[in-house]
Amino acid sequence: MNAYEMLKKVKSGEVSIEEAENFFSREHFYDMGYAKLDTHRKSRSGFAEVIFCSGKSDKHMLEIFGRLYEDEGEVLGTRASEEQYELIRKEYPEAEYDPISRIIKIEKDNKKRVGKIAVCSAGTADIPVAEEAAQVAEYFGSNVERIYDVGVSGIHRLLGTMDRINGANCVVAVAGMEGALASVIGGLVDVPVIAVPTSVGYGANMNGLSALLTMINSCANGITVVNIDNGYGAGYVATQINRLGVRK
Amino acid sequence: MNAYEMLKKVKSGEVSIEEAENFFSREHFYDMGYAKLDTHRKSRSGFAEVIFCSGKSDKHMLEIFGRLYEDEGEVLGTRASEEQYELIRKEYPEAEYDPISRIIKIEKDNKKRVGKIAVCSAGTADIPVAEEAAQVAEYFGSNVERIYDVGVSGIHRLLGTMDRINGANCVVAVAGMEGALASVIGGLVDVPVIAVPTSVGYGANMNGLSALLTMINSCANGITVVNIDNGYGAGYVATQINRLGVRK
Amino acid sequence: MNAYEMLKKVKSGEVSIEEAENFFSREHFYDMGYAKLDTHRKSRSGFAEVIFCSGKSDKHMLEIFGRLYEDEGEVLGTRASEEQYELIRKEYPEAEYDPISRIIKIEKDNKKRVGKIAVCSAGTADIPVAEEAAQVAEYFGSNVERIYDVGVSGIHRLLGTMDRINGANCVVAVAGMEGALASVIGGLVDVPVIAVPTSVGYGANMNGLSALLTMINSCANGITVVNIDNGYGAGYVATQINRLGVRK
Amino acid sequence: MNAYEMLKKVKSGEVSIEEAENFFSREHFYDMGYAKLDTHRKSRSGFAEVIFCSGKSDKHMLEIFGRLYEDEGEVLGTRASEEQYELIRKEYPEAEYDPISRIIKIEKDNKKRVGKIAVCSAGTADIPVAEEAAQVAEYFGSNVERIYDVGVSGIHRLLGTMDRINGANCVVAVAGMEGALASVIGGLVDVPVIAVPTSVGYGANMNGLSALLTMINSCANGITVVNIDNGYGAGYVATQINRLGVRK
Amino acid sequence: MNAYEMLKKVKSGEVSIEEAENFFSREHFYDMGYAKLDTHRKSRSGFAEVIFCSGKSDKHMLEIFGRLYEDEGEVLGTRASEEQYELIRKEYPEAEYDPISRIIKIEKDNKKRVGKIAVCSAGTADIPVAEEAAQVAEYFGSNVERIYDVGVSGIHRLLGTMDRINGANCVVAVAGMEGALASVIGGLVDVPVIAVPTSVGYGANMNGLSALLTMINSCANGITVVNIDNGYGAGYVATQINRLGVRK
Amino acid sequence: MNAYEMLKKVKSGEVSIEEAENFFSREHFYDMGYAKLDTHRKSRSGFAEVIFCSGKSDKHMLEIFGRLYEDEGEVLGTRASEEQYELIRKEYPEAEYDPISRIIKIEKDNKKRVGKIAVCSAGTADIPVAEEAAQVAEYFGSNVERIYDVGVSGIHRLLGTMDRINGANCVVAVAGMEGALASVIGGLVDVPVIAVPTSVGYGANMNGLSALLTMINSCANGITVVNIDNGYGAGYVATQINRLGVRK
Amino acid sequence: MNAYEMLKKVKSGEVSIEEAENFFSREHFYDMGYAKLDTHRKSRSGFAEVIFCSGKSDKHMLEIFGRLYEDEGEVLGTRASEEQYELIRKEYPEAEYDPISRIIKIEKDNKKRVGKIAVCSAGTADIPVAEEAAQVAEYFGSNVERIYDVGVSGIHRLLGTMDRINGANCVVAVAGMEGALASVIGGLVDVPVIAVPTSVGYGANMNGLSALLTMINSCANGITVVNIDNGYGAGYVATQINRLGVRK
Amino acid sequence: MNAYEMLKKVKSGEVSIEEAENFFSREHFYDMGYAKLDTHRKSRSGFAEVIFCSGKSDKHMLEIFGRLYEDEGEVLGTRASEEQYELIRKEYPEAEYDPISRIIKIEKDNKKRVGKIAVCSAGTADIPVAEEAAQVAEYFGSNVERIYDVGVSGIHRLLGTMDRINGANCVVAVAGMEGALASVIGGLVDVPVIAVPTSVGYGANMNGLSALLTMINSCANGITVVNIDNGYGAGYVATQINRLGVRK
Repeated sequence: MNAYEMLKKVKSGEVSIEEAENFFSREHFYDMGYAKLDTHRKSRSGFAEVIFCSGKSDKHMLEIFGRLYEDEGEVLGTRASEEQYELIRKEYPEAEYDPISRIIKIEKDNKKRVGKIAVCSAGTADIPVAEEAAQVAEYFGSNVERIYDVGVSGIHRLLGTMDRINGANCVVAVAGMEGALASVIGGLVDVPVIAVPTSVGYGANMNGLSALLTMINSCANGITVVNIDNGYGAGYVATQINRLGVRK
Repeated sequence: MNAYEMLKKVKSGEVSIEEAENFFSREHFYDMGYAKLDTHRKSRSGFAEVIFCSGKSDKHMLEIFGRLYEDEGEVLGTRASEEQYELIRKEYPEAEYDPISRIIKIEKDNKKRVGKIAVCSAGTADIPVAEEAAQVAEYFGSNVERIYDVGVSGIHRLLGTMDRINGANCVVAVAGMEGALASVIGGLVDVPVIAVPTSVGYGANMNGLSALLTMINSCANGITVVNIDNGYGAGYVATQINRLGVRK
Repeated sequence: MNAYEMLKKVKSGEVSIEEAENFFSREHFYDMGYAKLDTHRKSRSGFAEVIFCSGKSDKHMLEIFGRLYEDEGEVLGTRASEEQYELIRKEYPEAEYDPISRIIKIEKDNKKRVGKIAVCSAGTADIPVAEEAAQVAEYFGSNVERIYDVGVSGIHRLLGTMDRINGANCVVAVAGMEGALASVIGGLVDVPVIAVPTSVGYGANMNGLSALLTMINSCANGITVVNIDNGYGAGYVATQINRLGVRK
Repeated sequence: MNAYEMLKKVKSGEVSIEEAENFFSREHFYDMGYAKLDTHRKSRSGFAEVIFCSGKSDKHMLEIFGRLYEDEGEVLGTRASEEQYELIRKEYPEAEYDPISRIIKIEKDNKKRVGKIAVCSAGTADIPVAEEAAQVAEYFGSNVERIYDVGVSGIHRLLGTMDRINGANCVVAVAGMEGALASVIGGLVDVPVIAVPTSVGYGANMNGLSALLTMINSCANGITVVNIDNGYGAGYVATQINRLGVRK
Repeated sequence: MNAYEMLKKVKSGEVSIEEAENFFSREHFYDMGYAKLDTHRKSRSGFAEVIFCSGKSDKHMLEIFGRLYEDEGEVLGTRASEEQYELIRKEYPEAEYDPISRIIKIEKDNKKRVGKIAVCSAGTADIPVAEEAAQVAEYFGSNVERIYDVGVSGIHRLLGTMDRINGANCVVAVAGMEGALASVIGGLVDVPVIAVPTSVGYGANMNGLSALLTMINSCANGITVVNIDNGYGAGYVATQINRLGVRK
Repeated sequence: MNAYEMLKKVKSGEVSIEEAENFFSREHFYDMGYAKLDTHRKSRSGFAEVIFCSGKSDKHMLEIFGRLYEDEGEVLGTRASEEQYELIRKEYPEAEYDPISRIIKIEKDNKKRVGKIAVCSAGTADIPVAEEAAQVAEYFGSNVERIYDVGVSGIHRLLGTMDRINGANCVVAVAGMEGALASVIGGLVDVPVIAVPTSVGYGANMNGLSALLTMINSCANGITVVNIDNGYGAGYVATQINRLGVRK
Repeated sequence: MNAYEMLKKVKSGEVSIEEAENFFSREHFYDMGYAKLDTHRKSRSGFAEVIFCSGKSDKHMLEIFGRLYEDEGEVLGTRASEEQYELIRKEYPEAEYDPISRIIKIEKDNKKRVGKIAVCSAGTADIPVAEEAAQVAEYFGSNVERIYDVGVSGIHRLLGTMDRINGANCVVAVAGMEGALASVIGGLVDVPVIAVPTSVGYGANMNGLSALLTMINSCANGITVVNIDNGYGAGYVATQINRLGVRK
Repeated sequence: MNAYEMLKKVKSGEVSIEEAENFFSREHFYDMGYAKLDTHRKSRSGFAEVIFCSGKSDKHMLEIFGRLYEDEGEVLGTRASEEQYELIRKEYPEAEYDPISRIIKIEKDNKKRVGKIAVCSAGTADIPVAEEAAQVAEYFGSNVERIYDVGVSGIHRLLGTMDRINGANCVVAVAGMEGALASVIGGLVDVPVIAVPTSVGYGANMNGLSALLTMINSCANGITVVNIDNGYGAGYVATQINRLGVRK
């Protein structure tokens, strides 16, 4: 609901002035002083708030984790360290941690997943970013097909797995170094390709900027790009697209 | 169909060796010497081939335009000059040209459009790129809502038009200078936002690179980015997403 | 007073040749060998000298801190480590330290503050820089309103706090990642906005350069920019402006 | 007035729902199709809208110029070509044009100017940008002192004019090449310095980016920076500060 | 022959002091004042000197062309304009010009070509650079197989032409935009791949720098890179390699 | 063998459908979950797979090392740490480690080496990269002549060693700082020069990017460039060229 | 004379207050409104003022040229167009123009030149910049030895001319493309080398930035660098050094 | 002596063939395997070889230090760590170490110094680089005047010390952050100014690149630039210039 709609409802009596005032106030947020948790977020967008753990103090980490868990019955954090996992586990022994993707989470049982997203990585070193994308997409309710180590320097590896990519509503292509994977996949599928450059490489890779430029300049259709190493962002938008592909 | 599927069909007899050979050959293309037109493209991906007119010689321009028109009964070219339009018009008086978006086309009558894409521009100078996105999306069969001149330096203009953005399967956000429009929209909608940086601006805008960096670093969820001034690419992927949202 | 005025006073007898010589000499400074403290600074500009602590040796840190404290009866240091605080505290137990802003200080009691500066931050990770700006402005005698976690990806958070920004003589907008906050605020207020890019972010943020470019290219009026993470500089110039707004 | 205040007034009956609706709608703008003129801007911010002429079509130029002139009784355009001036002059013979600053305007008689802004340029080639700043500030009602050709390679030129800078509420420092002027002035005055890098220079000046970096990294206090060649922006914010210095 | 060998021959009497002096003097060159033609070059390296025509004055162009033709009985110039061709043709009607590659030449009849170089281009817009490489290689005596319009966004086009690439001693891969072609070819062949980035593209292609970075960061083995648009350099080194593959 | 050849052999009966299927499948690889080892690589390209050790976990390092050793009877890893060597040595006491080049290997006895590659380094700090190139080339069967510390700032050192460079099929030129070595060598020899920029230097060397740009812009013929510090890549392609020069 | 010395002389009576005032005023300059000519410059520094012609209006060009000619009896302008020469020649038929260096001048007869500066250029395309350096140095009274077309890709050309470089007090090394000339010369001589990068080249030369980086990173001793294409600056500082070498 | 002179002497009998051979051989160097010490360097250029200590192994450090000490009776190393000093001191108790400049040396007694070089630093943080320049110049026999903490943000500090700069044959200007010091000094003196950018600063200083660009773009005459933090290079070339100024 936007400002215009809000005002219309004020006029029609559906919404009180107090509620309207609240609409523009900070009360949509649970104010923790150092952060404002958006506790209404899920009902509005269908995506619960996620914790970016890196750099958070122990106290903040625990409080935010606890608060979101309480609100949603589940919670997910990205870029968590092993130390943060130890901290959380003492309080919440049911928490799980994956050292590859660095995701910490408590997930509801029997979550139903829909549609299909294919997550491809060019090299083995790109897997942490790919896994962040894959697990975020799964947490948000998407089925994910993982296809790793299919970089373009051995193109038959990719061609040999096209049957597993087929049928996906969206493909996430994760690649560092020269980042050419997205273009090749973009030429082989007819659904959107989310390209994720990674900081993997050395020398003139400029911490992923070279791969980012490759992907932005892709000659293939249907390719869009997110920030370097932003597996979370790719998993998020892939889920948005996947949901469009399955909704009725 | 990929290599694996092809070979399975060779084995089962569904496909002859000759057809399989052809699968990997150049015969999918109409070879014009200087270009290889992908005349099977539409049946495969649902998108007909489009002409990037800029830099094409008169002879090539005319031949490719004619060939695609013949094949599809309609044809669209991007980044066409007035001179190229005059050239085409002599042969094909039914061709239309829009000097803002620089699109030249002959389009079938009574084309049915589906779904909804919102195309937003930050400033009036971004309209040429926004129109390229909008008209490409319309040509490929999407309904488009245009919302121009809603840059973030006057945020109430954007808030005042949120009712027209609502209901879109995808938003295209076109902005030069500081490129902040995509982030603000990304925080207001729950569908994918395709961000298009433009080369509009001066000084440290570095021909659009600053806007590109702004958009790639967006703190909002659901945002992906295409190349600077790439209205065509945005219209293409927006249509892919829009089709997912309406199919069935 | 500049060279021209000095010479006029020499001529009129108001100033002796010796004083004039001194005007151009190093005697304005308390020469500590490794540094030349500008002990006349406050009477000249209304701002006492401040210590940039980072990288200073223990001996220098202590000496400079002591000397300025002695001269002014109060003293402030930026970018101080916990270790430097421990060092100072042994000698000056009245010293205070804020680990967020990394400011160490001894401040006079009952300091009167005037006017109003609004300091806004986009995310929680930008708070250290915002606090540096806020505390420097307070130390120099400005009232400060803090408005944190109002990044543009959730624009209603910012709109909901506009009443607290109103009435400020100057707004400091602190943001990393895509740095769009300054443009949005610039479009909502009619006083100068000091934009502070931060190095917060990852990937293509290039340690704050992306945010700096966003802010320099802002399409909104009234925005000027300081260096990445330069909270001190923003607090300083905001105070200059605030003083103009209250002086009579 | 912001959203919160608007709603309060709706509640108290001071403002009708229709007015509130309008507040968030496009009706604040005179919609010309290709542009949305902010005709209420002056009453809100004290600054009338200004035309960025570069790149505007003849038809748009004339219409916008006429509309703003009609609304305000005066009008100013920046970056206007001689051709655009000829166009305007036919319709509005009272229009004036300055080929140095490329400003076109019709200004009310007997406009009162207040306070003082000093506009300094490093070299003669920086004068066009300095004049844009100066004339914009004058148009918005500030007294301007021009001090040109005082680059740091002959520091006595600057020192010899300090008496003319004294008393200004704000200094605009315009410099290309190495852009060091802002730092030197920043060390000599106790009011805010708005630094404007220019694209003047050659070789490694990178079209002004080198001067921009110099200014952003200034070691002097009280310096903020606007975009390369952005004389308009500097004149605007200098006027905001100057007004603070004179209001009562 | 190097300095050491020269001195040995001086010692042994094979070479006179005068010849040795000459070895280090300018006499290896035909000094035309504005240029020093290396007229002994072919006997030393097996490659005759080639003219870089762009920017040469008419007088110099004619003199250098004539001199080299006289010395070698054939001559080749790169980056020649149509105007330069007209100029040359008046004097040397036997000269040929190719407007695509912008090569002008007079070539000996019945030149024998050896080995095989495959020159691949990603898009049709890359053909001018590819042709420069191909024609330079042919002029220097290599057989060339041209395989154009095989960009990675339609990977089956490349796979369908692998039989024509097989058997080459070296592959030249010419690509602009995202430049991924070199990596894919590098993974398919076992001979050196010379990657040539082109300035083809727009937006963030940065005039070929993006493609250059892609190629330098390639994850495939056997890839080396030359300067943007440097078809000549690629044709030269490809010939060096091709000669190694056939010599004996 | 490529797709086309494969299909021809399917048709002729030389290859079964099962084998063809396999050709496009993942079965060319020994799938270790986290990596897909290309165990058929040597028979196809003449080069066995090499381990990039940096960043590999102990478990993966040991498994991959063991697997490749088992398959080939020898194995080589680049960028190995002393810790990784200790790990390997416990299991495989016959492993050798060179702390300069950081290469770990077990090599077959009495390996025959052919041809000649000259590896030159500009400074002593470039030797680690030069040694990586040299040892990789030797492992792959090339004779290598090492010529170190011949940077262009003392050109007589290089001239004095030209007799050792003569006769090589290929020269590898390794240089950091200003990277001029490749150009000078390129002007002295008539075989391909593989230029390797290194990250050696400080200040404006930008971690090797300056040397890379120098080499890419070389005015000498016959020079191609690999990534910064990529000794492995240079040794690989130098061997490809060297083999061409000796085969028959 | 500096401020300190001036005040000492005021004190001693050597200088009046009026003169001292003047010392800091603009009266050192002949104020032409748009420019402040430093007419005392020569007596102070030994170098008369020079005109940077590029971009000057006809009126300003003529006035400044005339004024300086009148003051000094000779005058020199850099970066002058043919049109500017025609303009000057009408008024001053004795003016000379060199289209290569783009220098316009009237020079006193029988000027005595001292010492020796060697000006070297890498390629023929670098000659315009080299000539600017050479002619500026000659105008300021230095003997100049020109050594052109001695780029490092044919190092024997440079070695063969070392006898002409010997005895110079300073060497100017002008080079575009990879800019390696300065390093090689720096290793061969024991006097300062002024390196001038030029914008000559294409592709990744980035308009001279690559050559600038090469020269700044030089591993040779005694090398300092001026701006891209700044022949004037090199000629100026070379003369300063040359004068030191001959003064007594 | 160059190649040409050498051959002349061979011809005249002054030099034997053996000596000439040696001239081009490695025998000018004391070959230590990992380094080739240029032990004839001092007699040739007047400057003994200096050790760049950073990164050298203990064994190499000791051997090279000892060897040069033995040859010259004195020795100097730059960028030495405290650990390296401890190592050297055990063997050579007469060695001195300065932790600011990080120079380690054993210097002959009663060394005569000539002429005068002024070394200026902008801030206290630039002193380490300034001291490297100063001590290298002193070691090579120049008198040095140190003038520190005279950055342009307090220009009177610089003006007040001009009497100490006067009389120098050369000025070294060391500055980080915005690097404007060189331009201001360049406008005040008539001798060459060697500008040394430092990596001091933060944010957009890009590790000294901003200061480097400022200095390269200086509008003042007589300024040349060395690499970031290259105090050694500045001290070296300043000594070359100083010697010219005193030689007779």
